[in-house]
Amino acid sequence: MYDLLIRECDVLLFNENRRTTVGTNIDILVQGKRITAIEPTGRARSENAVEVINGRGLLAIPGLINTHAHVPMVLFRGLVEDVEISAWFNDYIWPLESNLTPEDVYWGSLLGMAEMIEAGVTHVADHYFFMDQVAMAVETSGMRANLAWATFAHEGLGKLDESGAFIQRWNGKADGRITTWLGPHAPYTTGPEYLAAAAVRASDLGVGIHTHVSETAEQLQLSLDQHGVTPVQMLVETGVMDLPTILGHCLYATEDDIRLLAGFSTGIAHAPKTYLKLGMGTAPVLQFREAGIPVGLATDGAVSSNTLDILEQLRLMVLAQKNLAHDSTTMPVDEALDIAFHGGAQVMRMEDELGDIAVGKLADLVLLRQDGLQTFPRIDPAANLVYATRSSDVHTVICDGKVLLLDGELQTIDKDEIKREVRRRLKRLSQRAPGKRIATYPA
Amino acid sequence: MYDLLIRECDVLLFNENRRTTVGTNIDILVQGKRITAIEPTGRARSENAVEVINGRGLLAIPGLINTHAHVPMVLFRGLVEDVEISAWFNDYIWPLESNLTPEDVYWGSLLGMAEMIEAGVTHVADHYFFMDQVAMAVETSGMRANLAWATFAHEGLGKLDESGAFIQRWNGKADGRITTWLGPHAPYTTGPEYLAAAAVRASDLGVGIHTHVSETAEQLQLSLDQHGVTPVQMLVETGVMDLPTILGHCLYATEDDIRLLAGFSTGIAHAPKTYLKLGMGTAPVLQFREAGIPVGLATDGAVSSNTLDILEQLRLMVLAQKNLAHDSTTMPVDEALDIAFHGGAQVMRMEDELGDIAVGKLADLVLLRQDGLQTFPRIDPAANLVYATRSSDVHTVICDGKVLLLDGELQTIDKDEIKREVRRRLKRLSQRAPGKRIATYPA
Repeated sequence: MYDLLIRECDVLLFNENRRTTVGTNIDILVQGKRITAIEPTGRARSENAVEVINGRGLLAIPGLINTHAHVPMVLFRGLVEDVEISAWFNDYIWPLESNLTPEDVYWGSLLGMAEMIEAGVTHVADHYFFMDQVAMAVETSGMRANLAWATFAHEGLGKLDESGAFIQRWNGKADGRITTWLGPHAPYTTGPEYLAAAAVRASDLGVGIHTHVSETAEQLQLSLDQHGVTPVQMLVETGVMDLPTILGHCLYATEDDIRLLAGFSTGIAHAPKTYLKLGMGTAPVLQFREAGIPVGLATDGAVSSNTLDILEQLRLMVLAQKNLAHDSTTMPVDEALDIAFHGGAQVMRMEDELGDIAVGKLADLVLLRQDGLQTFPRIDPAANLVYATRSSDVHTVICDGKVLLLDGELQTIDKDEIKREVRRRLKRLSQRAPGKRIATYPA
Repeated sequence: MYDLLIRECDVLLFNENRRTTVGTNIDILVQGKRITAIEPTGRARSENAVEVINGRGLLAIPGLINTHAHVPMVLFRGLVEDVEISAWFNDYIWPLESNLTPEDVYWGSLLGMAEMIEAGVTHVADHYFFMDQVAMAVETSGMRANLAWATFAHEGLGKLDESGAFIQRWNGKADGRITTWLGPHAPYTTGPEYLAAAAVRASDLGVGIHTHVSETAEQLQLSLDQHGVTPVQMLVETGVMDLPTILGHCLYATEDDIRLLAGFSTGIAHAPKTYLKLGMGTAPVLQFREAGIPVGLATDGAVSSNTLDILEQLRLMVLAQKNLAHDSTTMPVDEALDIAFHGGAQVMRMEDELGDIAVGKLADLVLLRQDGLQTFPRIDPAANLVYATRSSDVHTVICDGKVLLLDGELQTIDKDEIKREVRRRLKRLSQRAPGKRIATYPA
């Protein structure tokens, strides 16, 4: 007896050279958390499945992976536009975040997860605070998540204890969908001593570290001036890189940094919408890949990127990389999809479990409508996916074998309740109190 | 008696400094082609309107304007990915286009117009061939259009006669929604003599000229090498600029070119998705605007841009310009919307008739859903429009006072019929015959 049969869908498949093909008339069978069979339509016995989804005309793709986000920041979407980065942090984000209560974070998390599920995102690496509430939202929503409590040096080492306690409370919870890591904010907000302490703590706990690194040229210069090393070198020297890591952004990795990173087990979270919008430049994605460093897509927080939409980030990555190279042949469609699916799974260190629709893998998958005029004629479904599909084409979302969205309808989250709760909190949340902020960005 | 009442909507308005505000609880009244009243909800008498649309929760914006397209190229969407520009033209586009019959162009036009209407585009400047069929599709679809027959020097001057005959057949038709211009393809495919002849012809016919100019650095250099002038200078010297003009792209305008263009009555069509995807760089939008040269948004053809989606182009324009300037304060939200609406209307030379929702203007307008999670909370509806709204949020589209899309349903076009007709033609269309092409791009 199967738990779920998706019947007669198209499926995005990768061959051994990571080139895509689209299989048609395929049944996907799920038992528990896993894909247990993939067969030509007709052989599967629908009476042998508890739930049957009609996949006719739909394209099955692996669940989209968001390798770096600050999910609850959807609460502040649209509140900070067209300002400089230091003002963005010091005059807006960090003062606004000082207004947040744990309950605000819970409702913000649910709102962001609802948005992600509707957009086909099944797995997120979240980096924020009041992470117990984010974890509760993961339990409710049914998503998969890697959770890290963002901490700063000025909060003291005691905060690492609290963060460690959070890790122990939640690691492996939500039926195994939650993993927990340490989240020292960034070299420029922690300094080397704090990072070294965090590395020891993570090692003791047996977990990894999710942090921001080298986001701007100014951060790189500041690190060289203050510490005589690049932010990446600081991560190496403090022992952070000896652990599993997710490095957010890393736009200003030097050539030496890239060579150095290639020797460690790490992954880069790439969120091009933020970079373009804040005029930050873009990351050397091709050089990372040439050096064998995995790159996955990310949304960052909605105050910079406005949306939690990985398909949008996929398109922006390709367009920005082609433009950067001044070469229309750079990052062809299949490479972009390899980054989105396999790169994302690698950054999450789950490449054996996720990133492909294949027997034995976890059943995280998305069914996309293909009947939109913007994807017609369907000459090249892979090119459509990169250049024309919208997240509104997401029809059904399955994570860990459970249906989270069916024919556009959320199955685990009450959208109206979230909107009510968020509206109620909004006036208080959007006020900035003079002098009140959670950290200070170096001017 | 009014023909149409849109009741209780929000409305995107511009003040005299072109800053946006959003009015709420507003009724919009339409008589014939024009907006005849805008009133607080409650005053309008719904029994006095033939048709009433419930606008509650919807945001009314002016109809989106696409200032440069090759609409029927949607037939080839996805057929040419990741190739260099010269191969793009010589190995794909121009051989593929040699397959097209007038009937193919009709069905391709209808497909592209259906896509545009669903995406809130009410007005398009189209530049293609078999333009009688495009005009017939404009009649059917109910859109507004400026139509130019693309011609090349190697086709001979006789083609200008044919193009002139088309102009006279169709100018002012479709209840005044169609205007017709000459469309010499580009300086590099026509040369100065042909452009001069086209300028005389356009002047005789009392129409303008829609052309491509300075798309790549190579085109600029080729013009300097072959003719000793920039492509823009060639347009000036041949008399083209003495006419009303739409200049497609113009990425490589020199500083002198920009000074020169400022002295003429012209507009730039800006299609950033094509530029990014083909690695062409981007256009100096801010410099054009500083010089007083109008800039409007465009989709170009779907073989380069994959979609005919002006909201997507709006977002890409802002992101590309901020990134180019390395400055997050560049092109703030209101300026972007000023370009989309007023810039588009100016490029079309209809700024007195279009670009605002105001009494006396033509009733080209779009109602957008605002209930998507990606636009919640609705802190800044204008920022949402630029950074988070998707064309799938388009609810209703009105052009020239007629409803073309209502609650997501096309009112003038049979989508299934178009898909059938296009599918039937696809195999023949997508074959390339050796040596057969409509023109040759200089290698």
